[in-house]
Amino acid sequence: MKTADAPKNGFRPPAVPDVEVRGFWGDRVDAVAEKTVMILYERCVAAGMLDQIDPDRPVPELRMPFHQRADGSPDTVNVQMFWDSDIAKVIETAAYALYRKPNPDLEAKIDAIIDMFHKLQQPDGYVNSWFIRMQPGKRWINLRDCHELYCAGHLMEAAVAYFHATGKRKLLDVMCRYADHIGAQFGPGPGQKPGYCGHEEIELALVKLGRATGEQRYLDLARYFVEQRGQQPHYFDVEAEERGADPKQFRHRTYEYNQSHLPVREQTKVIGHAVRAMYLYSGMADVATEFGDNSLTDALKILWSDLTTRQMYVTGGIGPAASNEGFTDYYDLPNKSAYAETCAAVGLMMWASRMLGRGPDRRYADIMEQALYNGALSGLSADGARFFYDNPLESAGDHHRWNWHRCPCCPPNIGRTVAAIGSYMYAVSADEIAIHLYGESTAKLKVGATPVTIDQSTTYPWDGRVSITIGVDAPAAIKLALRVPGWCRKATLSIDGEPIDAAKIEDKGYLRIDRLWQGGEQIQLDLQMDIRAVHANPAVKADLGRVALARGPLIYCVEEVDNAPGLDGLIVADAAENAGIVSIGELGGAVAVDVEARRERWPDWDGKLYDTAKPELEATTARFVPYHLWDNRALGEMLVWVRAQR
Amino acid sequence: MKTADAPKNGFRPPAVPDVEVRGFWGDRVDAVAEKTVMILYERCVAAGMLDQIDPDRPVPELRMPFHQRADGSPDTVNVQMFWDSDIAKVIETAAYALYRKPNPDLEAKIDAIIDMFHKLQQPDGYVNSWFIRMQPGKRWINLRDCHELYCAGHLMEAAVAYFHATGKRKLLDVMCRYADHIGAQFGPGPGQKPGYCGHEEIELALVKLGRATGEQRYLDLARYFVEQRGQQPHYFDVEAEERGADPKQFRHRTYEYNQSHLPVREQTKVIGHAVRAMYLYSGMADVATEFGDNSLTDALKILWSDLTTRQMYVTGGIGPAASNEGFTDYYDLPNKSAYAETCAAVGLMMWASRMLGRGPDRRYADIMEQALYNGALSGLSADGARFFYDNPLESAGDHHRWNWHRCPCCPPNIGRTVAAIGSYMYAVSADEIAIHLYGESTAKLKVGATPVTIDQSTTYPWDGRVSITIGVDAPAAIKLALRVPGWCRKATLSIDGEPIDAAKIEDKGYLRIDRLWQGGEQIQLDLQMDIRAVHANPAVKADLGRVALARGPLIYCVEEVDNAPGLDGLIVADAAENAGIVSIGELGGAVAVDVEARRERWPDWDGKLYDTAKPELEATTARFVPYHLWDNRALGEMLVWVRAQR
Repeated sequence: MKTADAPKNGFRPPAVPDVEVRGFWGDRVDAVAEKTVMILYERCVAAGMLDQIDPDRPVPELRMPFHQRADGSPDTVNVQMFWDSDIAKVIETAAYALYRKPNPDLEAKIDAIIDMFHKLQQPDGYVNSWFIRMQPGKRWINLRDCHELYCAGHLMEAAVAYFHATGKRKLLDVMCRYADHIGAQFGPGPGQKPGYCGHEEIELALVKLGRATGEQRYLDLARYFVEQRGQQPHYFDVEAEERGADPKQFRHRTYEYNQSHLPVREQTKVIGHAVRAMYLYSGMADVATEFGDNSLTDALKILWSDLTTRQMYVTGGIGPAASNEGFTDYYDLPNKSAYAETCAAVGLMMWASRMLGRGPDRRYADIMEQALYNGALSGLSADGARFFYDNPLESAGDHHRWNWHRCPCCPPNIGRTVAAIGSYMYAVSADEIAIHLYGESTAKLKVGATPVTIDQSTTYPWDGRVSITIGVDAPAAIKLALRVPGWCRKATLSIDGEPIDAAKIEDKGYLRIDRLWQGGEQIQLDLQMDIRAVHANPAVKADLGRVALARGPLIYCVEEVDNAPGLDGLIVADAAENAGIVSIGELGGAVAVDVEARRERWPDWDGKLYDTAKPELEATTARFVPYHLWDNRALGEMLVWVRAQR
Repeated sequence: MKTADAPKNGFRPPAVPDVEVRGFWGDRVDAVAEKTVMILYERCVAAGMLDQIDPDRPVPELRMPFHQRADGSPDTVNVQMFWDSDIAKVIETAAYALYRKPNPDLEAKIDAIIDMFHKLQQPDGYVNSWFIRMQPGKRWINLRDCHELYCAGHLMEAAVAYFHATGKRKLLDVMCRYADHIGAQFGPGPGQKPGYCGHEEIELALVKLGRATGEQRYLDLARYFVEQRGQQPHYFDVEAEERGADPKQFRHRTYEYNQSHLPVREQTKVIGHAVRAMYLYSGMADVATEFGDNSLTDALKILWSDLTTRQMYVTGGIGPAASNEGFTDYYDLPNKSAYAETCAAVGLMMWASRMLGRGPDRRYADIMEQALYNGALSGLSADGARFFYDNPLESAGDHHRWNWHRCPCCPPNIGRTVAAIGSYMYAVSADEIAIHLYGESTAKLKVGATPVTIDQSTTYPWDGRVSITIGVDAPAAIKLALRVPGWCRKATLSIDGEPIDAAKIEDKGYLRIDRLWQGGEQIQLDLQMDIRAVHANPAVKADLGRVALARGPLIYCVEEVDNAPGLDGLIVADAAENAGIVSIGELGGAVAVDVEARRERWPDWDGKLYDTAKPELEATTARFVPYHLWDNRALGEMLVWVRAQR
């Protein structure tokens, strides 16, 4: 196995085990390693996933009904079809957990699952529990609906993670053989299918596999799937006709649902199923990085702007509608009914991190951090035991974290993301290290052949002061890019006590430092962290006349437990004046914000729908807590966008 | 033909020709008589309705496709099935128009249509163009979906109206024969069907027919249909099985849609299709009046409270959802997507007017007036030429009056209602006249055998001063009930200049005057008409932090034509202080309200979705015009609930 050359001008994330996190993220990763991962494993077992995967067990009966069409007739898709992907994300989470903390019991369980996949693998390399055991003989006939390549992709990600964490390559070898089988099946050649998956994922997974193994052919296959998407004649039409189905009988009606309505470079509107869209753009960005493909990057920039300036919640949540688990009209961002699936915010982080493959740019890192700390992290309870699938920005008190979900994609997705947080914090090119995210941690990176240790000491995100110590074995000329978040109104930098004019070395929101490091240098970066009153573009009707509070990367909310019921009666000034911060013990020392506010008190409305009586405005203090921590205490109402004084 | 006895303690509306309206309503009735009625006729002809009805023409091909189910398969219903009802409402409107203004051409056209129905009538009395000509042999097999008795009901209403207006009884005779045929088909006896219509209407129509003809059996049949509704075994299940259909394959899923989920006295929530609900309750109220049935009235009071305290727009519009053309959850009253069908507001007026059959009570008359002047009247343009089907309370400028509608129920419904306005203004019992609505007019009524003339002189609704002159041929002891609207904070009454203490004679919002009238008495009623700032119950999320302006019975709105675009940037104090009134010439002298306001001015939002920049608040004057008059001038935005200062 050779190591793939670093892409020209490209930045790649470090492997997860290369970064040891402590502090804020250390606690979160510990929760995943100590609790979440076993919950994930046990619930997958309870769901019957291993009965389906293990070739030594009898073929089980169908556990889940097939989806129904609107008229009640059965669809072609069943949740069990993509159980391989759920188990794969559990393996991936377990890999990072095992790196964090040895756990022989867990490792044995995961090894056993890997053995099942190894035994399941067919002589030609094919691996998919559904189509080997539940619906044999139906391989590759419905890429549009059946998640077949999607499952392969998640297993590839799991294989790379498990290899990095444990050094064990059994699953990696299985998946390389499967990738080679897939490479033989799909392509422009005679006897090959010019297809691609209805649910994107394999594109980014093949890049990960290529990077881990150094095999260019996996990168090439990723590029093929990206390029082929949306070409005419449309593959999903052709395969439907080949299997005797009417292509028009597609439950989601238009191929916008899976972003195959147009070739990818012609797409300008972020559309359809949100997770699919994010995984596609992630794969496109990876391919752009690996191949230095500016035309792909240009298309992605248009899509990025489309998403982040018209279709994204302030939490970084995306995909407002449950009906398509995805996008609707521009500025349609209802708060209470927000779908904003955890997986979609994770997907946005993934896309953002991959846009950084073309170099440091705050435009992407800011949104990555916004989605991470808010719309994604909200998907996991503070103790790592319960999950949100959808992440509304308002609740009447009836939206609570779940133990599990019928479609269990989100729990392992947020689990693997939290456990892999170190790989999002940094990116490394041939001669530069970019620090995208701050947090108490130690990273052992390699720039070219030069090992560099980066030690961050900080209580970020609760405070903006970050001390960074550089470690090198011998003097080394390495560039360093330190992100200054867009929310930071003043950043102060010094190296070994010597002030540096941050404005002079800022480029695209990063302080670019180019010097010969002796080792032991202390970089002090102070990011001023104000309380911010955030307004939404008035085109977002749902937020009109309302204000959201933010501090650093965190979006805040009010909860009933702190503020009594009737949160929509609270009115705050749209400036963040008269606000103070306080640490909340029962939320692990999280920083809350107390704001002087008024509360609307109405005369009795009993039996009345409309009235001319006026409300009284009572002075009060509103307590805001970080959005990602909501529903970790008493059940009750929650609100992000609070009414603003006018 | 005998005259039905007046019901015990009951009030009945006068026939339309008994009240001559002038002023505000005179102009509106003239517009209907001079313009709307011919438009209705011509568009029905253009749609091909007469080709279907006239037995002398060849049976036409189907013009409209059958409805589709959600999966695209054809449903059992087609709009043409209820064309008889649309033509019937045109005949009814024409009847009132002919009373208003002789029009030999129109009268000849209507006579020709009546001849068609006469010829169409089968030897057994059956009359329905769809089931005689388009689907012969399918009578009475699907009462749930096919509007068969509904069509009969509208033709009965048309027959009564045409008889009252012209004295011609051909259609009345046709419909009496048909009513007798229906009476033979439906009932508890052997060989009779225990059914009722999926779309209520015949219940109230039979009461109208019974009152006009004095035939008790029509009242009895109305009562049978009311009583039978929702009984078990469920008729719609039974008839579905009899025609070989699966009762569960009902496109609207639950019988709540047509209010047959429970026997009527057990219903407590206003539910399902809004027009159907209103027509049912109207029929129930009529039956309650005719039979003095307190148990029906009690059930209706619960439903009335349910509707008006939880489910009604401030315009009197009802039924927020397009999906079922009806009701959803309590307090779910979105403004922009409000369905609030014109027919439903008309239906609410009809129900309210019939609740007054049990005696004067402001609770009902106030809502009748609210629906009339706002949610119903908005359905017809000022010139009588264009129509609203749905009546949102907010528009981005893309909602405009239509020339016609594929399902043309609303245009003739608002047409006939406006033309019949006189019959809503009064009600007469054995010894009392109730004045429910004020307006420049002359009514020639009969209390028992005593003729009484009531002459109103007023510019109402623009002003609250009403002068009433009583005319009798000889001294007569007749009670008079004058409504004091709930919105009126001070009412002053005098008779022949002699002040009367209104508070002492008020009962349920009516001033009850009991005296011997000599004739020529001048009653002066001054209803103080303030500008009111109306708030919604905070449970109505759509209106939170907003205020609606009202004056007298009128709800106001802001339009782009007066206030420039961006109406959601306007903020007004929630008191109606600093407001003045002005007459608008291009709206026929309508009274507009000018209010001191502020307008939010934002820095440039280009390319930004969220920002910390604050808006400036610019002083301005907001002009409010009556809601029913919106979209009569330039196209543009409209808003009822304006942001309130806090």
